[in-house]
Amino acid sequence: MNIDAKFSGLELGYDVPALPGMPEAEIQTPCLILDLDALERNIRKMGDYAKAHNMRHRAHGKMHKSVDVLRLQQELGGAVGVCCQKVSEAEVFVRGGIRDILVSNQVRDPLKIDRLARLPSYGARIIVCVDDIENVGDLSAAAGKYGTTLECFVEIDCGAGRCGVTSAADVVAIAKAIDAAPGLKFTGLQAYQGAMQHIEKYEDRKVKLDLAIAQVKEAVAGLEAVGLKPQLVSGGGTGSYYFESESDVYNELQCGSYAFMDVDYGRIMDQDGRRIDKGEWENALFILTSVMSHAKPGKAICDAGLKAQSVDSGLPSVYGRNDVKYVKCSDEHGVIEDPEGVLKINERLRLVPGHCDPTCNVHDWYVGVRDGRVETLWPVSARGKAY
Amino acid sequence: MNIDAKFSGLELGYDVPALPGMPEAEIQTPCLILDLDALERNIRKMGDYAKAHNMRHRAHGKMHKSVDVLRLQQELGGAVGVCCQKVSEAEVFVRGGIRDILVSNQVRDPLKIDRLARLPSYGARIIVCVDDIENVGDLSAAAGKYGTTLECFVEIDCGAGRCGVTSAADVVAIAKAIDAAPGLKFTGLQAYQGAMQHIEKYEDRKVKLDLAIAQVKEAVAGLEAVGLKPQLVSGGGTGSYYFESESDVYNELQCGSYAFMDVDYGRIMDQDGRRIDKGEWENALFILTSVMSHAKPGKAICDAGLKAQSVDSGLPSVYGRNDVKYVKCSDEHGVIEDPEGVLKINERLRLVPGHCDPTCNVHDWYVGVRDGRVETLWPVSARGKAY
Repeated sequence: MNIDAKFSGLELGYDVPALPGMPEAEIQTPCLILDLDALERNIRKMGDYAKAHNMRHRAHGKMHKSVDVLRLQQELGGAVGVCCQKVSEAEVFVRGGIRDILVSNQVRDPLKIDRLARLPSYGARIIVCVDDIENVGDLSAAAGKYGTTLECFVEIDCGAGRCGVTSAADVVAIAKAIDAAPGLKFTGLQAYQGAMQHIEKYEDRKVKLDLAIAQVKEAVAGLEAVGLKPQLVSGGGTGSYYFESESDVYNELQCGSYAFMDVDYGRIMDQDGRRIDKGEWENALFILTSVMSHAKPGKAICDAGLKAQSVDSGLPSVYGRNDVKYVKCSDEHGVIEDPEGVLKINERLRLVPGHCDPTCNVHDWYVGVRDGRVETLWPVSARGKAY
Repeated sequence: MNIDAKFSGLELGYDVPALPGMPEAEIQTPCLILDLDALERNIRKMGDYAKAHNMRHRAHGKMHKSVDVLRLQQELGGAVGVCCQKVSEAEVFVRGGIRDILVSNQVRDPLKIDRLARLPSYGARIIVCVDDIENVGDLSAAAGKYGTTLECFVEIDCGAGRCGVTSAADVVAIAKAIDAAPGLKFTGLQAYQGAMQHIEKYEDRKVKLDLAIAQVKEAVAGLEAVGLKPQLVSGGGTGSYYFESESDVYNELQCGSYAFMDVDYGRIMDQDGRRIDKGEWENALFILTSVMSHAKPGKAICDAGLKAQSVDSGLPSVYGRNDVKYVKCSDEHGVIEDPEGVLKINERLRLVPGHCDPTCNVHDWYVGVRDGRVETLWPVSARGKAY
């Protein structure tokens, strides 16, 4: 019997965890599900906020890695485009028709620079970050080769302690080099304070952002002094966007996790001391899992382990349940404490992932659900695109 | 311009991190590379061991999720087939031509049981684990629907504390139910002591395995007393296979990580107190990464973060280097301590992953290298197949 021929009808369960129209109870677990109503509300809310504050919102595509979600962010939330972290992600977004793309990262490898410099010829605006004057000549040469323009942000390290330069003098020196280089355009500043996004208290986050804003203002002043006023000053995440929006210096946000939420972000507090997943944003992303073994009383085993999520920022929570708790996982199993023995075999649970970005990155599909049925399947288009 | 048409030539870097024939220096990072010489030596060594000890070796496919690696394990290492953890993985291995497949897990969801019961009609022997007598009727009905035979292992929990029954009486009761059920065949026992595989000292692991072996022998005696001698007694991993092989009760091994190695397995000790990655097995799997920013002295930033690996069992080590250390990671960045400032922009490093299984599961491709060149690209065929 020809195996490939028999499978080629894309039978249930082969290559996809669900089919549109299917009742939620038939979805093959574990997989990612999106509560489409909650997702749309989150997207509209952030879009309304950005509009009301006269900010551009460049949605962070590294979180969901999905052309479909990004389109929704553009259509319902007025997002101006995407930021992502890798050239391979930018390639996927270009191919998906997104036309304003920031690679919020350094690109140094010669072949990667070559790949990047080709992208504007497909009709997309491409911006890349620079934190080393040595990078400028390579970017310029590649843009020259393809006859394209690469726009550049100088990256300021305003607290992440990772990439980026710290002094206004370095910012100005790199901006001048970019401005002088053929094929490059100095467009603005990347100043994302990543280290503070997960600090629990609002006031503590504000202290960090105030420092970042001061640093950015100093850099902008330095740039203006040499006639290089930045067109865009970009930054801001789900834990900080209100600070950047009221800074009088940023004009572009880069929020990602607000759309899906996760445990690690959910536990930070808003201005009123309330968890941000209890009012500001809704959980729209879940790992759907099933109980597959209950051979021991008090302990149920579900089918979502390390292959269904990343636990770098902690274990998932069980959505809407206080009687059971996800306490441990191995490659393909999750251990759920069930002290009262309430869970049944095949019972479905919605897990809120500890950290949404790397959790999305292990799945091939988002299963979009509404009113108890599968409405759509969206590929995690840039999944695995790390290179 | 038609974007899809321009990309359809599978230009470098789009969908693949490398092309066969390319020098290693041009591989687009981060990605997984396999040292093919080391991989082949590991595979031959385990195959020779199993043969010398008259053990079947059913290689664990959940580790690499690759039809190509499994074929190599069959061809060079005499593996009899594969074990995997999910129906969706079994579907991939069936499609890839593997003909002896154990799903070393419970299958309870009605549609999953249906999918499983179809697989023998594609020419593969399918074995599944059972730890609940309630499961027997459902498996039998599905086999009846497709006119197939599902073979069953009763799963013994011999220390993992996860799935499986613990008493010989329960083993016998489930085996009898399987034996009586149309469409099912009682084939043997699944008895994998997973909890001990990563205990550092050989002697401490032996204590745990001795207990497991005693438990398995008691179950086998109970089965023989009712005329149900198991054909296969299956278990054993990279940290224990020598114990099962000399147990006089196991006849099938299920090793996985030996082929690739990782930091977490590498640190356990052999009988002579030597780390198993310093003699018993070679590191064959690496995350290839590049330095992309060095804006701060003493700290280099590489391009392999949480999207390129799973850090559930700890951070990766930098292979062959004592002068630099991978100390931290975020979604797309790794922070490397470089106290002497020896690292250069674009310098390549080989990272040994903390835990190979979930690290392989985030990548689409294995880039096979030999003598400094890319020899082959193998898809991670069952990547993302968790459902």
